Amino acid sequence: MVALMTDFGLGDGDVGVMKGVIAGIAPQAQIIDITHEIAPQNVASAAWILSTAYRYFPVGTVFVCVIDPGVGSSRGAIAVAAGDWFFVGPDNGLFSYVYAEQPVHGAVLLQNPAYQLPQVSSTFHGRDIFAPAGAYLARGVALHEFGAPVEPAALQRLPIEPPVRRRNSIEAGILHIDHFGNIITSIPLSLVPDLFDLSEVRAEFAGNHAVVTQRRRFFSGGAADGVPFLYGDSSGYVGIAVRNGNAARTLGVSATTPVTLILKE
Amino acid sequence: MVALMTDFGLGDGDVGVMKGVIAGIAPQAQIIDITHEIAPQNVASAAWILSTAYRYFPVGTVFVCVIDPGVGSSRGAIAVAAGDWFFVGPDNGLFSYVYAEQPVHGAVLLQNPAYQLPQVSSTFHGRDIFAPAGAYLARGVALHEFGAPVEPAALQRLPIEPPVRRRNSIEAGILHIDHFGNIITSIPLSLVPDLFDLSEVRAEFAGNHAVVTQRRRFFSGGAADGVPFLYGDSSGYVGIAVRNGNAARTLGVSATTPVTLILKE
Amino acid sequence: MVALMTDFGLGDGDVGVMKGVIAGIAPQAQIIDITHEIAPQNVASAAWILSTAYRYFPVGTVFVCVIDPGVGSSRGAIAVAAGDWFFVGPDNGLFSYVYAEQPVHGAVLLQNPAYQLPQVSSTFHGRDIFAPAGAYLARGVALHEFGAPVEPAALQRLPIEPPVRRRNSIEAGILHIDHFGNIITSIPLSLVPDLFDLSEVRAEFAGNHAVVTQRRRFFSGGAADGVPFLYGDSSGYVGIAVRNGNAARTLGVSATTPVTLILKE
Repeated sequence: MVALMTDFGLGDGDVGVMKGVIAGIAPQAQIIDITHEIAPQNVASAAWILSTAYRYFPVGTVFVCVIDPGVGSSRGAIAVAAGDWFFVGPDNGLFSYVYAEQPVHGAVLLQNPAYQLPQVSSTFHGRDIFAPAGAYLARGVALHEFGAPVEPAALQRLPIEPPVRRRNSIEAGILHIDHFGNIITSIPLSLVPDLFDLSEVRAEFAGNHAVVTQRRRFFSGGAADGVPFLYGDSSGYVGIAVRNGNAARTLGVSATTPVTLILKE
Repeated sequence: MVALMTDFGLGDGDVGVMKGVIAGIAPQAQIIDITHEIAPQNVASAAWILSTAYRYFPVGTVFVCVIDPGVGSSRGAIAVAAGDWFFVGPDNGLFSYVYAEQPVHGAVLLQNPAYQLPQVSSTFHGRDIFAPAGAYLARGVALHEFGAPVEPAALQRLPIEPPVRRRNSIEAGILHIDHFGNIITSIPLSLVPDLFDLSEVRAEFAGNHAVVTQRRRFFSGGAADGVPFLYGDSSGYVGIAVRNGNAARTLGVSATTPVTLILKE
Repeated sequence: MVALMTDFGLGDGDVGVMKGVIAGIAPQAQIIDITHEIAPQNVASAAWILSTAYRYFPVGTVFVCVIDPGVGSSRGAIAVAAGDWFFVGPDNGLFSYVYAEQPVHGAVLLQNPAYQLPQVSSTFHGRDIFAPAGAYLARGVALHEFGAPVEPAALQRLPIEPPVRRRNSIEAGILHIDHFGNIITSIPLSLVPDLFDLSEVRAEFAGNHAVVTQRRRFFSGGAADGVPFLYGDSSGYVGIAVRNGNAARTLGVSATTPVTLILKE
């Protein structure tokens, strides 16, 4: 199985071309899309979406991820064995959450031309380097065949630090605003196991008078439609939603707005 | 074969996660997307799109459909055997057209934790309940293994009543405005077998002076570009289109605009 | 393998229906999407996108392409064997680049009702004619079984003439503006092998004072962010991009803007 994630969109045929290349090399491989609508060149957003998805794929799945603002520069092209899976893409921090959550068994640079297309362009490594590498991995080629090893400690990482809980507050950010307008904060649910037990919890947003004070264990029942509430998102983070509505729009919040959670015992 | 339909969009990775779950349980299953761009939580629209699609899938296809405004409420999660296919999703009317058109051989609640993910979230039953159920059905698990039976008569249904033809008119609605701006009315072609034989047919729209009087058996030939016309849509309903144009925009019509068809012999 | 390209979008279920039809006829066929977001009825754009993609698919792939403004008219429905692949769709010029680049081994009209759905609608030949034809081809049905042969010279072609290089300039157009806003001109790289050796190269746009004078072999390094530059696109044409930006928006250019390249030795 090969799973794909890019910021290519679906309008240009580039994703189809990558699948054609994979199918030519590994005809038996099943190809699954995670998403191709990552905001152009937003490595941090892609890294987080990958972190919510990879665990649900079968053992041995090869993830080919191409969010690659540095294509054609000296950034490395890598394949990594981590946990039960393989990860292929540019060495720019895309796999930061994976490295933090899984043991890294090995990592290599994609250097061997035998596992690339005959002509490598300077702008479309998804087609010429990453899709072939993913397909050969899916066919069972060993990691060390692709190129020189990379020390796990030398792999690029994004500065992802979970927020800290102080006595009465957590200063946090927003990881993602989803298709429904639900706001996924950077606060892991494990940091607030008492979320539904505290006497009061309040979310505030920088540069904005909006305040969220409702909490709900389920989307249904409780607060009326239109009223934003805190909930435990299925990704494992504190979320903010409006039932049958769009929380981000209701609250005037974007993906870069800082969030503060005020906690009262 | 497993066919998927959701209102998740393609930007968040949720659809990919569902496919990963299915592939882990039923590696041999082919997975096909119907659409993931149903308007958020629009069960009626999803029900109709499913009705135009399911007949064209192979015998035994499992349809996993997640348009689920009531996730986390007491609405049931169901699997239904109807006609030659299986249907999995929330019991909220999504399968209303199927029930009206096919014999229902059996229906059950999805209760057996053996056929769910080990941890069931309160907000993402697509991943935790519906995708696993679809995959186990595709692997051949019998319907009664999933949970208690539901009487077909007790399954939730939307109020879908086809319009009535009076002597000179049909009061109808709009089922769908498609990607090209074609307007699909709620008038089955079987209600107007004489559509192209009547001396005059006129479509009028509530709160709007637009009138459509042209009729065309084919998109090409006949009326000039820019002039809206009535035609028999491939879904089996009366449609209104503009050749090489967008009928909904031309006529200022939305999915909630009532339509009246005036018929003259 | 069956590869699909349409202008149906992903919101209506039509693409899913085509896949259901294919899977019913050729259960072993792998189905891959090139794109379904071709601008409605833009045959020229579809023809070019197909030209950048088909070479990367395995030998024997059947391309089913439905951009079909003339559906229901007298335009032919065809299957063509060209190069190592098969091409199925309306005879409206969609395969013009293929004909120019590959030997055409045979072409037929899709007339045999044995390889169509039992009922053929007047508006959805993708479902009723093209998907079945592609599936039967993938199953190994011989080309001549589908209908009467068409002389290769009689196949419809778009007027695609590559621009001409004069002493100091090339008058050209824009083939495509991609997801990142990169502008793909109609100038093949083979027409300007000296692109990076000339002392000066300048791109100008009709009705616009914008001028591009930077050139870059790679996206990274060289010109600062925000400054548009000429580069060799992976499609084989001269492109114009802005690093970490949107060239089309920066330059105020659309897909119909004429481009002139001024060359100085």
